[in-house]
Amino acid sequence: MHDDAFAFMPYPPVALPHAPTGPLAGLTFAAKDLFNVAGYPTGGGNPHVLAMSGIKTRTAPTVQRLLDAGAALIGKTHTNELAFSMTGKNIHYGTPRNGAAPDRIPGGSSSGSASAVSNGLCDFALGTDTGGSVRTPASYCGLFGLRPTHGRISLEECQALSHSMDTAGYFTRDAQLFGRVGECLLDADPAPLPERPQLVASEALFAMLSAAARDALAPALAAISACAGTPEALPGALPDMAEAYWAFRYIQGWEAWQAQGETITRHGLVLGPDVAERFAWAATVTEEQYAQSCALRAAFRDAWRRLLGNRVLVLPTVPDIAPRLDADDSAIEETRRVSHHLLAIAVLCGTPQVNLPLGQKQGAPLGISLMGPRGSDLGLVRLAVRVAEAGRADR
Amino acid sequence: MHDDAFAFMPYPPVALPHAPTGPLAGLTFAAKDLFNVAGYPTGGGNPHVLAMSGIKTRTAPTVQRLLDAGAALIGKTHTNELAFSMTGKNIHYGTPRNGAAPDRIPGGSSSGSASAVSNGLCDFALGTDTGGSVRTPASYCGLFGLRPTHGRISLEECQALSHSMDTAGYFTRDAQLFGRVGECLLDADPAPLPERPQLVASEALFAMLSAAARDALAPALAAISACAGTPEALPGALPDMAEAYWAFRYIQGWEAWQAQGETITRHGLVLGPDVAERFAWAATVTEEQYAQSCALRAAFRDAWRRLLGNRVLVLPTVPDIAPRLDADDSAIEETRRVSHHLLAIAVLCGTPQVNLPLGQKQGAPLGISLMGPRGSDLGLVRLAVRVAEAGRADR
Repeated sequence: MHDDAFAFMPYPPVALPHAPTGPLAGLTFAAKDLFNVAGYPTGGGNPHVLAMSGIKTRTAPTVQRLLDAGAALIGKTHTNELAFSMTGKNIHYGTPRNGAAPDRIPGGSSSGSASAVSNGLCDFALGTDTGGSVRTPASYCGLFGLRPTHGRISLEECQALSHSMDTAGYFTRDAQLFGRVGECLLDADPAPLPERPQLVASEALFAMLSAAARDALAPALAAISACAGTPEALPGALPDMAEAYWAFRYIQGWEAWQAQGETITRHGLVLGPDVAERFAWAATVTEEQYAQSCALRAAFRDAWRRLLGNRVLVLPTVPDIAPRLDADDSAIEETRRVSHHLLAIAVLCGTPQVNLPLGQKQGAPLGISLMGPRGSDLGLVRLAVRVAEAGRADR
Repeated sequence: MHDDAFAFMPYPPVALPHAPTGPLAGLTFAAKDLFNVAGYPTGGGNPHVLAMSGIKTRTAPTVQRLLDAGAALIGKTHTNELAFSMTGKNIHYGTPRNGAAPDRIPGGSSSGSASAVSNGLCDFALGTDTGGSVRTPASYCGLFGLRPTHGRISLEECQALSHSMDTAGYFTRDAQLFGRVGECLLDADPAPLPERPQLVASEALFAMLSAAARDALAPALAAISACAGTPEALPGALPDMAEAYWAFRYIQGWEAWQAQGETITRHGLVLGPDVAERFAWAATVTEEQYAQSCALRAAFRDAWRRLLGNRVLVLPTVPDIAPRLDADDSAIEETRRVSHHLLAIAVLCGTPQVNLPLGQKQGAPLGISLMGPRGSDLGLVRLAVRVAEAGRADR
């Protein structure tokens, strides 16, 4: 494997046994360097964490499930530092290449996984999504990507960021493969979608995009409508997102500091400036703010559940295409803030969301998303495959 | 191998073939992570360099020579960043443990190799010594260590710092093994020492130490005298070291910037503050300063050659025991500056120097050195073994 995309951590390859046959036989995959894999260290995007890791003796069950399905693991991929950033730029290790838009950031934190798949270095890859770390790079790199229902795909033997919002997801280039991998990673849906689920959309969410970005998503929306019916308009006001954004930030900050604060402090980890600032802020979040935020999250979740019912929400994944590699840091930080107003809905609701790589703007990918009720993951994946395949048949 | 000493880079182990028999059969060794080894990346103490490394396909001839002698390579060891520091503290990866004085820095840049050997994690280890990177950690960690004649041990497939001063050396705990490894790495001496070489010493060099440090070396000096004869006093003034120190600095700075400047600049390497400052200074060294320094080095070398002839200089390796782990950075930097007034003699002269772990102060090791003429390496190693074995027999 020649990795001029900087997708992979340069670990000596470990020959990991996989089933000789199975639904994913003959396919290759990679795992974000947060998942423990026997024989490899786990670097978590920080060199000091890497130095302290040692060689792991256990393989994360989610990785094992894919090996048992016949897929071959070819390596571990770069991640934003401690998974606490969405840029794909890692101050220690550099920036994996966005295979669909090489002059733009790949997005993160599952940057290496999105890079590996978008550059054709493997067939699919595991990532994690706490606040958007699968969906953002999927949109930026033109990939299918799943953030599952919280708790639906195992995060055992995986480095935590924010336990009540962390999820394990994956990327593919190909719609059909997106379905096959989903069938392997997910058991039967506890809350199945109807055969022909009703789609809904909210003008307010699309209004967060520029006119140009909305225009860029119009063909994607048309393709979805053609295949799955025109989305009903969600009436009026949505649950308050400005307030919910801060609940998300406080919960993420509190839990991230609980998870990593001691390591950071005791070992004096040297963090990139953006990540250091974020953790410094996280350390200031009080238990009271956390508790209030959890209560607010519960109310937000109930409100969305009542609003959505058993329907599927069509929404922009992120507000725009990936920023250029040379965009300045404050612009990228502002992109993050705005993006979270879209991404945090599924995070706070604990609901599954799929990015479909159906849009384009200035030659770069722009994704559109389907979000379903909790426990409808497999139905959502199948719907995404149907929509993407139908759209392709139409062309 | 359980590495709670942080000596090793946590790479998945690579099964590297070695000769089944040979003079080093049954022994284990490690190589500083500047040497290329097939199947491993080369990290050079910087995560971005690691990320760009890829898996190497060629093994450095010096490593291969040890494999061919029957020794088994068990891993690659931490180094100070780009080998441009002597502390052993790596801002990215932490500090390997000094096996002889765990509350003190191990010294560097061959920090991990000295740590691995002093903690008993392998029998011997390869390092490099440009300005003191084998001799300093050898003294700090209580090990035998060789800085060979410049050019004597191959540095092919090894990351450069300062090509006209870089050397490949090694560490052992054991005198007898120090000899055996030397016999494998070195061919017959082009400039053999006499059978009973005359020792010399200079009051001026010992005067750079505190009275307590001089006292700590007195038994070592006595042991050397008992075995190899009392050193003759070098008469009067030595070649000007204040001037030579700056020649060393300019040459190292110029060559280091030639070797690494483009990588640092182009990829925006994030360096530890001390290393960043050193490279920033290196970038300011002019070609004229370099040329003048090379001329000065030639004169310094000639003066020492005339002074020393075919005799062996006994000198302190470094001025004192290792600083404590919690010593502040300015104190450590000052230690470095003073140390270079001793260490730079062999560097500028291109002569071999051996550290013997014969002294102790405050319970921590303090080494003493033998420096011979260029090309007398094997004789010098044998002399060191003889002295150490005789000292042990006396106790």
